[in-house]
Amino acid sequence: MKEAYLAIVEKTLDEVMPGALERPAELSEAMRYAVGTGGKRIRPLICLASAVAAGGRAEDARYPAAAIELLHNYTLVHDDLPAMDNDTERRGRPSVWAKYGEANAILVGDALQALAFKAAAMAPRNVGRIVAELAAAGVGVVQGQIEDIAAGEKDIPFIYRHKTADLFMAAAVMGALAGGGDDRAVESLRAYALNLGLAFQFEDDLLDGDSPYGREETERRVRDATAAALAALEGLPGDSSPLAALAQSLVGRKK
Amino acid sequence: MKEAYLAIVEKTLDEVMPGALERPAELSEAMRYAVGTGGKRIRPLICLASAVAAGGRAEDARYPAAAIELLHNYTLVHDDLPAMDNDTERRGRPSVWAKYGEANAILVGDALQALAFKAAAMAPRNVGRIVAELAAAGVGVVQGQIEDIAAGEKDIPFIYRHKTADLFMAAAVMGALAGGGDDRAVESLRAYALNLGLAFQFEDDLLDGDSPYGREETERRVRDATAAALAALEGLPGDSSPLAALAQSLVGRKK
Repeated sequence: MKEAYLAIVEKTLDEVMPGALERPAELSEAMRYAVGTGGKRIRPLICLASAVAAGGRAEDARYPAAAIELLHNYTLVHDDLPAMDNDTERRGRPSVWAKYGEANAILVGDALQALAFKAAAMAPRNVGRIVAELAAAGVGVVQGQIEDIAAGEKDIPFIYRHKTADLFMAAAVMGALAGGGDDRAVESLRAYALNLGLAFQFEDDLLDGDSPYGREETERRVRDATAAALAALEGLPGDSSPLAALAQSLVGRKK
Repeated sequence: MKEAYLAIVEKTLDEVMPGALERPAELSEAMRYAVGTGGKRIRPLICLASAVAAGGRAEDARYPAAAIELLHNYTLVHDDLPAMDNDTERRGRPSVWAKYGEANAILVGDALQALAFKAAAMAPRNVGRIVAELAAAGVGVVQGQIEDIAAGEKDIPFIYRHKTADLFMAAAVMGALAGGGDDRAVESLRAYALNLGLAFQFEDDLLDGDSPYGREETERRVRDATAAALAALEGLPGDSSPLAALAQSLVGRKK
């Protein structure tokens, strides 16, 4: 099922991205470079699987799934900039600014964000609510990043909630809405994704060997958040087993 | 009428912007600084007046009007960055990066773009089409900017069309759609705004004393584009006199 979902994601990303010949060609090329191919695509998988769990079809959510991946990738392009994390590599390749220059990287990120909303607006139903969820995540992820780079003591729960969990929540809620889920399904999937996002972030800290809470406490938090994510899947109208499998696969994952 | 429209724009911008106490406070403050108050607000005025010309009410278009102003202001914040135009001043005050730092300015622009789509999604009808128009303009403005900063010979018509006219067109079309205009009204207003945007850009060149077409030819183009904008207003179902007045006021305007 995961391979079928990934095929939907890649096909839809390819469809909404500008063609190689679209002007200016360097923008199209750099946007495709930024989004890449064959990544893990965790957020779009959550989106498609949430449509199914809410009682719809994975295909219903293919445009919102592309949208959340575009939004995620724009944030990576901007995070890597010299004025931000100053990273010259991403996924074993030069980062976008290292390859295309700083001005182009700012603009590529900007265009990817606009394209994310173009994709979200192509959802088959509930477009207004879907766009509003994506926009809330788009503001939230910046709130988290500003808090993260600010001087002084950091508010870790605020940062994790916004920098990481907001995109997971938007993915799940947009999927549920695109799949025609009712409000109860939408809120169950929001709770699932909030906890999945936190578990993902705590696990990331363990993989980096750098957790603000210490190793033992962080392992406990991964377990608790994963259990809460799984519990939130109870009583959904559709098949939630792909979402359960996704939650279980994140624990103890490799980078 | 212009004052009543401006009051709607400022009230709606204030409503959709994060409150002064919303966390992180420096993000909220910098976003409000970037958008300012009391500017000319040409694009949102076009949006409100287009709703009226299409047969609706100005209030119908207040969220799309705020959306286009937010999108416009994010592009200014990013254009001013050191990696782009490296401008330390804007509207007689320090530019956003000069006041809040480069990383914060990148993020403030990013958040303003997301907020623009949040506002667009609050339109009273035709939300999917309205968001799609704003997203197309969001991609288009980057296409124009990339072409503008690229080395080598520049394609001036492409740059003017995308860097300037795309936002004018999105303003008019979103307003027409929010006001319930039919497809004929929407396309008339798109033609109006394309020509108005070109006239605005040519006039800007004259004001800067720096036109790629030379003074005389540029003056001719201002007149022709203004005439084409006015001609496009024929046969609209609502009152198009505010749009006509706007087109006439741009010719020979001051900076």
